[in-house]
Amino acid sequence: MTTVFYAPPEAFDGATVRLPDAEARHATKVLRLRAGAEIVVVDGNGGWHGVRLTHTEVGVAIGIVVATEQRPPPPPLRLALALLKADERFEFAVEKAVEIGVTEIVPLRTARVEAGAKLRAERVEGVVVAAMKQSLRAHRPRLAPLTPLADVFGPGAVVLHEGAPLSATLAAALATGTVPTLVVGPEGGFTDAEVEIARAAGSAIASLGEARLRAETAAVVAVALAAFHRAP
Amino acid sequence: MTTVFYAPPEAFDGATVRLPDAEARHATKVLRLRAGAEIVVVDGNGGWHGVRLTHTEVGVAIGIVVATEQRPPPPPLRLALALLKADERFEFAVEKAVEIGVTEIVPLRTARVEAGAKLRAERVEGVVVAAMKQSLRAHRPRLAPLTPLADVFGPGAVVLHEGAPLSATLAAALATGTVPTLVVGPEGGFTDAEVEIARAAGSAIASLGEARLRAETAAVVAVALAAFHRAP
Repeated sequence: MTTVFYAPPEAFDGATVRLPDAEARHATKVLRLRAGAEIVVVDGNGGWHGVRLTHTEVGVAIGIVVATEQRPPPPPLRLALALLKADERFEFAVEKAVEIGVTEIVPLRTARVEAGAKLRAERVEGVVVAAMKQSLRAHRPRLAPLTPLADVFGPGAVVLHEGAPLSATLAAALATGTVPTLVVGPEGGFTDAEVEIARAAGSAIASLGEARLRAETAAVVAVALAAFHRAP
Repeated sequence: MTTVFYAPPEAFDGATVRLPDAEARHATKVLRLRAGAEIVVVDGNGGWHGVRLTHTEVGVAIGIVVATEQRPPPPPLRLALALLKADERFEFAVEKAVEIGVTEIVPLRTARVEAGAKLRAERVEGVVVAAMKQSLRAHRPRLAPLTPLADVFGPGAVVLHEGAPLSATLAAALATGTVPTLVVGPEGGFTDAEVEIARAAGSAIASLGEARLRAETAAVVAVALAAFHRAP
């Protein structure tokens, strides 16, 4: 089982890399790695680096890059998901979406998101990075700031609501050439007014059938169908 | 937002139904329903009943069936999932699989399941019932007892491991006429010996691509692809 570490591009200085604090603690305290150990470090930018540790102390891990492979970027796929009542359910959807292959997460505020809901961006970034490493990806998906719903509508957007089956509208959205965006509402779904605005802006409206799925389930199902729909 | 209650067939006596204790407490204490209220009760056997409450006290809810619709059974789809290190991840996969539409969950013991792992059947049954109600289904998926891996192999079984893309092998499995069974291993996956036994027994071997998915993610993705692959 490969353990992958993450270090952003600014952690590299020529062939030297210094793991960020949390990663260095994991390497030295949990895994007890020492100088001489070989690890894999992804830079979130497509770089998949073989690294030999040259200096370790508790909480510090510095190494030298011995091999680099530049991975091709994944096909773009955006998940725009409303904030949910339970942070764990939102974070769960983010974790699964990143594992499956989204390239951007757009947290949404919509009419039915609770007034006091807040994006816990630091926690969510942690989930994104952990899921990127878990799934052996070298590109770090972007976490957008909290975004008003209307900003994600347009061609390429597939709004999950009642309507045509997902696969047909998804195929149409994937064919537009823009980044496909799957738009998923909060627990109560979208209001009729929101759906009208989406439609007027050229978004596709799709459903996932007759079962009532929780918001985070709908998000994961839609991402899975989109990711595998276009798999080569 | 429809709140659906569950009462097993034995809770019905002619047109009278007495909600099970937990459901009755929810109805009377949380939702504060009283005699005269109309609710929906599913019996897990396809019955979708409109019920008028005739007698309530704290923790007791008795009603009379005023309308019944017998729903057609969903297409059979079985998820055989190894016990995982974290019960929450196993339960999460069960919740999502039931929402998406599996009809049976088979908990598995495999070579790489931890020796001390136990099925918390009562908790998992609770997750199954909650997800059935959440997704407005009238059929209660069966939770099988903990099963040895070899018992689920055979034609119709799709074992998630490295190999052909899921969609092709899944189509083949769906065409066999037996109940398709998606077989998902624990954190470390299946051993080579297990895969050989699966293959010899006529199971299909499929992968979900190059990304390394957590076990519960693989389960949910496979169920979503299977459920929507054959959606009308």
